Amino acid sequence: MSVTAPLGFRAAGVAAGIKSGGARDLALVVNDGPSRAAAGVFTANRVKAAPVLWSQQVLSGGRLRAVVLNSGGANACTGPEGFQDTHATAEKAAELLADSAGEVAICSTGLIGERLPMDELLSGVETAAGQLSRDGGLAAADAIRTTDTVSKISFRRGGEAAAAEDASSKPLGGNAGGKAPRGYMVGGMAKGAGMLAPALATMLCVITTDADLTSEELDATLRRATAQTFDRLDTDGCMSTNDTVLLLASGAAGVKPDLAEFEQKVVEVCADLARQLLVDAEGASKAIAIEVVGAASEDDAVKVGRSVARSNLLKCAIHGEDPNWGRVLAAVGTTDAAFEPDRLNVAINGIWICRAGAVGDDRSKVDMRPRDVTITVDLSAGPHTATVHTTDLTADYVHENSAYSS
Amino acid sequence: MSVTAPLGFRAAGVAAGIKSGGARDLALVVNDGPSRAAAGVFTANRVKAAPVLWSQQVLSGGRLRAVVLNSGGANACTGPEGFQDTHATAEKAAELLADSAGEVAICSTGLIGERLPMDELLSGVETAAGQLSRDGGLAAADAIRTTDTVSKISFRRGGEAAAAEDASSKPLGGNAGGKAPRGYMVGGMAKGAGMLAPALATMLCVITTDADLTSEELDATLRRATAQTFDRLDTDGCMSTNDTVLLLASGAAGVKPDLAEFEQKVVEVCADLARQLLVDAEGASKAIAIEVVGAASEDDAVKVGRSVARSNLLKCAIHGEDPNWGRVLAAVGTTDAAFEPDRLNVAINGIWICRAGAVGDDRSKVDMRPRDVTITVDLSAGPHTATVHTTDLTADYVHENSAYSS
Repeated sequence: MSVTAPLGFRAAGVAAGIKSGGARDLALVVNDGPSRAAAGVFTANRVKAAPVLWSQQVLSGGRLRAVVLNSGGANACTGPEGFQDTHATAEKAAELLADSAGEVAICSTGLIGERLPMDELLSGVETAAGQLSRDGGLAAADAIRTTDTVSKISFRRGGEAAAAEDASSKPLGGNAGGKAPRGYMVGGMAKGAGMLAPALATMLCVITTDADLTSEELDATLRRATAQTFDRLDTDGCMSTNDTVLLLASGAAGVKPDLAEFEQKVVEVCADLARQLLVDAEGASKAIAIEVVGAASEDDAVKVGRSVARSNLLKCAIHGEDPNWGRVLAAVGTTDAAFEPDRLNVAINGIWICRAGAVGDDRSKVDMRPRDVTITVDLSAGPHTATVHTTDLTADYVHENSAYSS
Repeated sequence: MSVTAPLGFRAAGVAAGIKSGGARDLALVVNDGPSRAAAGVFTANRVKAAPVLWSQQVLSGGRLRAVVLNSGGANACTGPEGFQDTHATAEKAAELLADSAGEVAICSTGLIGERLPMDELLSGVETAAGQLSRDGGLAAADAIRTTDTVSKISFRRGGEAAAAEDASSKPLGGNAGGKAPRGYMVGGMAKGAGMLAPALATMLCVITTDADLTSEELDATLRRATAQTFDRLDTDGCMSTNDTVLLLASGAAGVKPDLAEFEQKVVEVCADLARQLLVDAEGASKAIAIEVVGAASEDDAVKVGRSVARSNLLKCAIHGEDPNWGRVLAAVGTTDAAFEPDRLNVAINGIWICRAGAVGDDRSKVDMRPRDVTITVDLSAGPHTATVHTTDLTADYVHENSAYSS
């Protein structure tokens, strides 16, 4: 279903020849309206790839007709020529759609510092435009993969469709038959693994909806949703030059959604995609949730969670199935969050092995075998909480990332 | 030579039975004066081990008679009982020296979260006190090793001894014969590998001198020296609960040194020890110097160097002998240092493979085979520079740190 689950969208994914080996490497997503409202969030890295600079400019208008995405090259650190390549790509898509390049966003992922093969890319855009269809969502999701082992897609129903579906317990029932005309859909696709994949792990995500919203509503929704989901995925602390998350609304379902419910649906799609990214993170053998409780503020909780998520020593310990709470405390201690060292408590998989900053329950009680590991840090400083997700650090991570461009 | 190179110091290193296997695990360093001026710098981690809390308190008096150091246990996150253990250790040393526990510093290194075996430790202090000698510096340096493969020691001559020696070109000539009575010595020992060793990499360092200085002079010198050396060693971004660097002056040479020269000697000893720590860092196959030039301030230069040093992706690339400048730029881009992305230049081992934020010279010209790798980042934003040292990220690092406590 992916980005074409909602009405009003067509997509395609083709092999343009950007990647060697003949795999799909170019995706096109088109919004046929009636609305073109859109919003985007982008990497906070100050070294931004050309497509990010371009798309930020495009999104300042709050409207998107189409998105062109390519794998096989990030078009980052490519100078003014790289920006011209992005511009030319948007012009090509606009020409094929008889529309304006100023409403075409571009996303690229792959190796930094190399120009894209523009002949292949532009003819790929043409091929993709010829294959656009209501069924193209899966092919598009496939085309944006780099080292992702699987495509990442998600969708949720909202409005009366969701209510009707809840009543009939048919979780995957289609809405194509028009049985729920007053409902709406949110669909999405993503690639990457936080910052863990080798190409600096560009995370690209396109979310679509057939609900009718203004670009301001989409922008506020997207910022809040990504802050709670993708922003709390921290696999290796590295920040890509290309990260992009776009939200497009066609309005084709003719529904003005309840904003709180809509945000909830977008959060669910983002959380689902984030989880898929985490599980597919390269070289990872554990999915680690760092659950910070008892924080004086949500900011403190996120800060502590992120610090723990970035401790290489801890991530190695978890890989070795060692419930090393000392490394958790050492990571907490590097933050300026409100806490007293002798009031810190830490549980791993539910066993409170550190109490009051010192040894707690017997560490041999902790079952470290499951793939999912939950580390709970109680700061004993307030009522706020946050969860940050990461992975373990493995020899496979080192191998994958040592060999990428050589 | 180590800490007993300067006059006025005795030391010992013994096997107390704290470590299993019979290796040396307890060191005692004693200052016989006439002066006892001393200073210390400690980990910035807010979760501090008991010996750090104790020694900070002791150093507030600006005097040290002795330092007891143990490997085999960090005595961190051990609660009030752990602090009592540290206190008891200081009392034991004081009793043996017929002196005050308030002038005995304690340093511990090893696993976090476990109490020390106090019977072994206290009888080890007694054994060490009985073996104190002017030749004990090497045994002391050996006793503080954890996973260090070699002892780390260093010394420099200052004052007229240095001048006389320079003239006669006898770099290792002793001063024991009293031929250079107006000179002085600076000696030191260290253990750890920045934050790279498994025990949260506690870095312990004791520096001694027979020059005559006040505790205020020692404090100012030590802070400036460590800021330029140990503080710019960033092997894995993790910060220990136990890091301690002490500087003790006996005044036994009867020399009031030129302060600028003295600082230079202390910087040289610290830099030499830091280099030894880096080269011995566990699992590392490359020693990486990140040399930041063209910065608007020294702070900016350090910030950028540290960010590059902490990029797991880059450290993997260097391990794979891949001169991946894109990952350098991506790390620079996460800082708030003054720079324009399209004015960044990057050289690896002298080849400017990134110019003006884009592709520069041919990357195949970079010789990545040497163990030493220099990454030069030119921010094109001012006259300031700084160099941060790190190591590559290897499968061996993961293995060492996955297996430590399990």
